[in-house]
Amino acid sequence: MEDVENAGYINADFICVKALEEGVSIIGMTRGKETKFHHIEKLSRGEVLIAQFTENTSAIKIKGKAKIFTRHGELESGE
Amino acid sequence: MEDVENAGYINADFICVKALEEGVSIIGMTRGKETKFHHIEKLSRGEVLIAQFTENTSAIKIKGKAKIFTRHGELESGE
Amino acid sequence: MEDVENAGYINADFICVKALEEGVSIIGMTRGKETKFHHIEKLSRGEVLIAQFTENTSAIKIKGKAKIFTRHGELESGE
Amino acid sequence: MEDVENAGYINADFICVKALEEGVSIIGMTRGKETKFHHIEKLSRGEVLIAQFTENTSAIKIKGKAKIFTRHGELESGE
Amino acid sequence: MEDVENAGYINADFICVKALEEGVSIIGMTRGKETKFHHIEKLSRGEVLIAQFTENTSAIKIKGKAKIFTRHGELESGE
Amino acid sequence: MEDVENAGYINADFICVKALEEGVSIIGMTRGKETKFHHIEKLSRGEVLIAQFTENTSAIKIKGKAKIFTRHGELESGE
Amino acid sequence: MEDVENAGYINADFICVKALEEGVSIIGMTRGKETKFHHIEKLSRGEVLIAQFTENTSAIKIKGKAKIFTRHGELESGE
Amino acid sequence: MEDVENAGYINADFICVKALEEGVSIIGMTRGKETKFHHIEKLSRGEVLIAQFTENTSAIKIKGKAKIFTRHGELESGE
Amino acid sequence: MEDVENAGYINADFICVKALEEGVSIIGMTRGKETKFHHIEKLSRGEVLIAQFTENTSAIKIKGKAKIFTRHGELESGE
Amino acid sequence: MEDVENAGYINADFICVKALEEGVSIIGMTRGKETKFHHIEKLSRGEVLIAQFTENTSAIKIKGKAKIFTRHGELESGE
Amino acid sequence: MEDVENAGYINADFICVKALEEGVSIIGMTRGKETKFHHIEKLSRGEVLIAQFTENTSAIKIKGKAKIFTRHGELESGE
Amino acid sequence: MEDVENAGYINADFICVKALEEGVSIIGMTRGKETKFHHIEKLSRGEVLIAQFTENTSAIKIKGKAKIFTRHGELESGE
Repeated sequence: MEDVENAGYINADFICVKALEEGVSIIGMTRGKETKFHHIEKLSRGEVLIAQFTENTSAIKIKGKAKIFTRHGELESGE
Repeated sequence: MEDVENAGYINADFICVKALEEGVSIIGMTRGKETKFHHIEKLSRGEVLIAQFTENTSAIKIKGKAKIFTRHGELESGE
Repeated sequence: MEDVENAGYINADFICVKALEEGVSIIGMTRGKETKFHHIEKLSRGEVLIAQFTENTSAIKIKGKAKIFTRHGELESGE
Repeated sequence: MEDVENAGYINADFICVKALEEGVSIIGMTRGKETKFHHIEKLSRGEVLIAQFTENTSAIKIKGKAKIFTRHGELESGE
Repeated sequence: MEDVENAGYINADFICVKALEEGVSIIGMTRGKETKFHHIEKLSRGEVLIAQFTENTSAIKIKGKAKIFTRHGELESGE
Repeated sequence: MEDVENAGYINADFICVKALEEGVSIIGMTRGKETKFHHIEKLSRGEVLIAQFTENTSAIKIKGKAKIFTRHGELESGE
Repeated sequence: MEDVENAGYINADFICVKALEEGVSIIGMTRGKETKFHHIEKLSRGEVLIAQFTENTSAIKIKGKAKIFTRHGELESGE
Repeated sequence: MEDVENAGYINADFICVKALEEGVSIIGMTRGKETKFHHIEKLSRGEVLIAQFTENTSAIKIKGKAKIFTRHGELESGE
Repeated sequence: MEDVENAGYINADFICVKALEEGVSIIGMTRGKETKFHHIEKLSRGEVLIAQFTENTSAIKIKGKAKIFTRHGELESGE
Repeated sequence: MEDVENAGYINADFICVKALEEGVSIIGMTRGKETKFHHIEKLSRGEVLIAQFTENTSAIKIKGKAKIFTRHGELESGE
Repeated sequence: MEDVENAGYINADFICVKALEEGVSIIGMTRGKETKFHHIEKLSRGEVLIAQFTENTSAIKIKGKAKIFTRHGELESGE
Repeated sequence: MEDVENAGYINADFICVKALEEGVSIIGMTRGKETKFHHIEKLSRGEVLIAQFTENTSAIKIKGKAKIFTRHGELESGE
């Protein structure tokens, strides 16, 4: 029954992040009582990550110069 | 059954916050009878946090100069 | 089963409030037979609060000079 | 089970009222067989109240000079 | 179980009425086999009433000079 | 259980009728096998009636000079 | 249980007919195996009838000069 | 239980046909394994028929000069 | 129970075909493992056929010069 | 129960194909583990085929010069 | 019961591919733990394939010069 | 019952990636507690991959120069 339980997650919203410099970090933060880092994905310059919110991830932190595309528009991280 | 219980949360609305100065605080406040701080996420200048409302968070407070993107438009915090 | 009971609340509508002066009060008022204050959140100038309606909050009062963003448009509180 | 029963109420429509003078009254009127006042919220000049329809409130009366924002547009109360 | 039974009513459509003269009457008429007056709300000049259709009200009559806002547009009552 | 049975009716469509002369008649006609008058509401010049379709009313007849607002647009009755 | 069975009918589509001459006939025709007249409503010049499709009516015939408003636009009957 | 079974049919799509000459035929054709005529409605010049798809009708044939309004636009039958 | 089983079919999409010459054929093709002709409807010049997809028809072939209206736009068959 | 099982299929998306030359092939390909031809429909120049996705068809191949109308726009097959 | 299980698949999204050269490959890739080729469909120049995502296909690879139409717009494969 | 469990996945969102150079990598990353690579698909210059989020994939990483089409717009990976 593992599959049925996940079915709702598949349609979760997602973000696109394109690294504009070496070593951009995209950090998945835990859903639930505690808000901790659970995964860090490093992007090299030019790489793109497209990531959904999931049962484990309710917040995403982006460090480094990157272009970010979301349902609420585009923004750029980094100084 | 932990998974099924979370399924509705995955599609909750989210906000994007980009810190425009060092030390911007994004504070998750508890859902329920009491409204208390349950998590403070500090952002350095240029960092971005994308965070959903969750079963634990029904309000978010932002301290410091930041750009905020929501379903209801963009605004800027800080003086 | 606490989680399932809360699931509908996560998608409730929200408002954004940016304090334009020191000491803006955002007051959560109780849902139900009695309409009383149950929480007062004080904002310093420039701080932003993003708050959902919840099972405990069906009305929100804003005192002090602030910019307010809602589904029905923007308005400014304060004289 | 108190929570589940309230879940539908959270997404009820809401109105925003900004007082344009001292002593604006926002009066919640009872849902059900009898239509009576059940709550009067007084607003000072500049204060804003954002209030949902609830299981207890199916009508809202506004006395005094105020700006009102609803799904059907904006209007101004008061002479 | 009183709460669950009411849940659907909360999202019923509503009208806004602004009295343009003294003594505007907003009359709730009964839903069901008989169509009778069940409530008369008197508005003074400038007062606003925002009222939903409910399990008890399927028609609303407005007497006197008033501005009326509905999903189908704005109209003015009175001669 | 009377309440639950009515719940779907609350969101039924409605019409607005403004009488442009004395004695406009708005006639509710029965839903079901027989189509008969079940209620006549008389409007004086300037009065407005806002009425939903209900479990008892599937047709509405308007006699006299009036402005009518519906989901399908505006029209004027009377010669 | 009569009420629950009717609930879906309340939101059925409707048409508006304004008679442009004396004696316009609006004829409800039976839903089901046989398509027969079950009701004839006569309109005098200027009268308006607003009528839903119902469990008994799946077709409506209009004889005489009239203006007809439907979801698919406006048309005029009569020569 | 006859009523409940019909409930879904009430919201079926419909067409409007206005006869532009004497003797326009609107022919209901059977839903199901066989596609046969089950009803012919004759329209005199100027008459309008508004007809839904039903449990018995999945196709409609129009013979003679007529104006036809559907969800997919307007067309004219006849040479 | 024959009626309930058909209920979903009533809202199926439909096409309109107007014959632009004598003898246009509209051919219903069977839904299911085999795709065979199950009905041929002949149209004389000027006749219109409005036909839904049904439990028996998942494809429709049109031979001869005709104007065809569908959800995806208008096209003309024939050379 | 054969009917109920098919009910969802009736609202499946469809394509329109108009042959622009003799012998255009429209090939239904099997849904499921194997993707094989299960039906070839030949169109003469000018003929139109309107075909839904079905429980048996999850892909459609078009050979020969044809105009194709889909939810994602129009295209032309053939060299 | 094979039919009911497939019902949801019928409304899955689809893509259109038109080969702009000989030998364009459209490769269905398996849904599930392993992502492997399960079908290769070869298109000759000018041929069109319209293919849904299915229970067996969650990714599609296109090799060779082709025009591709999707919900997210048009693109061209090939150098 | 394997099929029913997958039914929700079929409508998951998808991305299109067109390789603009040799050796673009599209990397499926695991849904769940751990976020690991589970599949790497290599694209040659000009090849297109159209890939859904699935029960196994909640994030996708793209390395190399490519054009990416998503619900949130177009972007280009690579330096």
